Amino acid sequence: MEQRDKEAIKRIVGEEHFTDELIDLVSYSYDGSDHNHRPEAAAYPADSEQISRIMRLANERRFPVIPRGAGTSMTGSVVPAKGGLVLDMVRMNRILNIRVPDRQVVVQPGVVYAALQKALAPSGFCFPPDPASGKVCTLGGNVATNAGGIRGAKYGVTRDYVLALEVVLPDGRIVHTGSKCMKSSSGLDLTRIFVGSEGVLGIITEITLKINPKPTAFRTAMASFETLRQAGQAVTDIMHSGILPSVLEIMEENTIRVLREKSGADLPEVAALLLVETDGYTEGEAEYAVEKVVAAFQDNDAKTVSRAGSQEEAEKLWAIRRAVGSAAGSLRPNNLSEDVTVPISKVPQLLEGIQEIMTGQGYPFVIFGHAGDGNLHPKIMFDGSDPKQAREVHLLIDKVFQLTCDLGGTLSGEHGIGLAKAPYMHLEHDAVAMELMRLLKNTLDPHNLLNPGKMALDQ
Amino acid sequence: MEQRDKEAIKRIVGEEHFTDELIDLVSYSYDGSDHNHRPEAAAYPADSEQISRIMRLANERRFPVIPRGAGTSMTGSVVPAKGGLVLDMVRMNRILNIRVPDRQVVVQPGVVYAALQKALAPSGFCFPPDPASGKVCTLGGNVATNAGGIRGAKYGVTRDYVLALEVVLPDGRIVHTGSKCMKSSSGLDLTRIFVGSEGVLGIITEITLKINPKPTAFRTAMASFETLRQAGQAVTDIMHSGILPSVLEIMEENTIRVLREKSGADLPEVAALLLVETDGYTEGEAEYAVEKVVAAFQDNDAKTVSRAGSQEEAEKLWAIRRAVGSAAGSLRPNNLSEDVTVPISKVPQLLEGIQEIMTGQGYPFVIFGHAGDGNLHPKIMFDGSDPKQAREVHLLIDKVFQLTCDLGGTLSGEHGIGLAKAPYMHLEHDAVAMELMRLLKNTLDPHNLLNPGKMALDQ
Repeated sequence: MEQRDKEAIKRIVGEEHFTDELIDLVSYSYDGSDHNHRPEAAAYPADSEQISRIMRLANERRFPVIPRGAGTSMTGSVVPAKGGLVLDMVRMNRILNIRVPDRQVVVQPGVVYAALQKALAPSGFCFPPDPASGKVCTLGGNVATNAGGIRGAKYGVTRDYVLALEVVLPDGRIVHTGSKCMKSSSGLDLTRIFVGSEGVLGIITEITLKINPKPTAFRTAMASFETLRQAGQAVTDIMHSGILPSVLEIMEENTIRVLREKSGADLPEVAALLLVETDGYTEGEAEYAVEKVVAAFQDNDAKTVSRAGSQEEAEKLWAIRRAVGSAAGSLRPNNLSEDVTVPISKVPQLLEGIQEIMTGQGYPFVIFGHAGDGNLHPKIMFDGSDPKQAREVHLLIDKVFQLTCDLGGTLSGEHGIGLAKAPYMHLEHDAVAMELMRLLKNTLDPHNLLNPGKMALDQ
Repeated sequence: MEQRDKEAIKRIVGEEHFTDELIDLVSYSYDGSDHNHRPEAAAYPADSEQISRIMRLANERRFPVIPRGAGTSMTGSVVPAKGGLVLDMVRMNRILNIRVPDRQVVVQPGVVYAALQKALAPSGFCFPPDPASGKVCTLGGNVATNAGGIRGAKYGVTRDYVLALEVVLPDGRIVHTGSKCMKSSSGLDLTRIFVGSEGVLGIITEITLKINPKPTAFRTAMASFETLRQAGQAVTDIMHSGILPSVLEIMEENTIRVLREKSGADLPEVAALLLVETDGYTEGEAEYAVEKVVAAFQDNDAKTVSRAGSQEEAEKLWAIRRAVGSAAGSLRPNNLSEDVTVPISKVPQLLEGIQEIMTGQGYPFVIFGHAGDGNLHPKIMFDGSDPKQAREVHLLIDKVFQLTCDLGGTLSGEHGIGLAKAPYMHLEHDAVAMELMRLLKNTLDPHNLLNPGKMALDQ
């Protein structure tokens, strides 16, 4: 970018909504991954019209543009890998319309996830996906990464709730996709081309989301197992039992040990814990489902089974689960947190395989995740200031990706690909699928201006 | 197509799996709409490899190819508008894999919808979408039209259940899209480019679907209202009541009259009927929800409220709903059945508007549909052998589409666009959206070989 480009951007967004101060650019060079690259400038657009003008300028002058929400990406997907202009969507943070009788909300992309839930609460409705970063992440980011969360087993992911979008295309045209109806079979599905596209095909400027009445009854149960196989069979039995748990979390022995040692959790020495929530609109429905779950625990010789008798007891069990990230993270200065996913029945094999890859390599690790939809988060701790450690850890992660794909899995259940997993795309996707993704990118963004370097699309 | 093209196709699929007999070609010139055009030949491929070879040949020789399931389309989407070769997927009718612990099934596109449900029944699982043509329609067609059904309000549509696809591209390459995991955020969403694409971008040859444990408890209630406004407010109140009915059907006064006169149904003379099903995994859950529904009926001064006390009584109420199509259809030799959809709260306005358009025009009509997701099916009866009647009826339908789009609606909730609604695409989609759809089509199918003439893509 040249100075005259920066001046032109200032004229579009206003001087006070532009920065090329070093301190800002350093902030915009990072996300939640270990990737970083500095942009040349950042702007805070007010609306899709300004973004359209910026994209026309970017086309003329050929500089990269990187849309950014809260920067909570775990994959480098908002790192400006080739410099250029960051568009921070913080000013586009209005909830435009809550229409409960139509079961939908219309929001700008910079709305924080938790702000939407708070605004919906009085109506008894919610947006069901529940990313762990919900307190800070933005809905634009949720849509761009097809964010998930622990309730995916029953409620699906962001993709299942996006009805319509307004998007600024790489050439600056503004398109309205989808329909503000509960369902539509009208024309090609342009909406889902952009859901999960990590900002490489367009900049999302308005989002219409489907909302659900929030369940009002919940039950929580936990069980420990002496073997992974028993825990795996319990998961299978739960899936067969004719109910859908709203949460079905698994933690393996390293996770349990770290929780015991670092968080003082009162947990047995076992191979695996399962932590389950069931829900419904009546206490009876949630109770019926949790009884099925407990039966599956007992049928598989759980060492311990505990049921939360109250909201407080449930909260204690969930606090254990929430402590995993920080307890494990405290073991070393750096960590890599992955997001591999396999068919549900393959979860025990993936757990055992990751343990085999990681054990005895000198790096502490934990594995936990959403067994109900096959999504595991292995987390490996190391000292990133030692290049040898960083290299070795990445070699271990390579093996985890290979194993995941060998088991018919996917590189990402909910974090996306970004920079971190771009080198592994060929492990999961066949050559034609990669050609097709690149063709889409080239067709929509022939000058590779939007968020370049991501998803292995410009290789 | 020349004779040598036909010979080449015979060499690919085997002589016995090819036809250009007039009687067959006439059959393949129709679907459930009033459009027709004869193909030049039809073939019955055995697998994706044969389809790939056929597409390579089609590319070399430039003849159209039209994939076809059971031909139940209501929009002309399987009518060979520009001749060419029909690919009847009847031989690709195997259920390849039922994996309940993974919550998925893998099927070929020619599997009949009902055959899948039958195969799933012993496990207590189901594929939740429920198209009215389920006894005969194929899953390939369900995916290609993003089929819905009466349970869409709670369970969504086909799109929400497609995990992965195998697709033969227009140039003959075979691509595997998506992931056989419950969720994935890995790369651009190629799967949903093909869901609802009506065979214009690729030929679906294998489908991986998410399945759900089937609810086991149901309640049915019906209410009649003296004004559409009361019925509409009851729908709004139900949507606000914190539950999701599994079915929420509406029928207006013409429908009620036809049912009374033609099916002998014991129904009051009212402006609207609402017919609701609630479900759950416990009787208590279904009961709780139906009580909310009945309260909404009463709050809005329903003239009559009936609750099915038994399975038999529920069946009687649903038999009324199912009789609508044939009772109305018997009034005239031909009918046009539409599929317009609006935001849920606009249902009364759309109903009133359609009544206004149709009343006094000399053609009997009924309006019914899925109020729970805003999807109405106006059906207008006429004598198609009289060109004047056909013309007049189409002019009335024009107005219905205009009204629907004015109310922020969509041309199709579940039938698709095909030939029938192609001329109206511009009413719903902005110019850039149409350009983008055409760009996708041109990029993937530059010679316009696959199912040409549909969705206004080649205009």
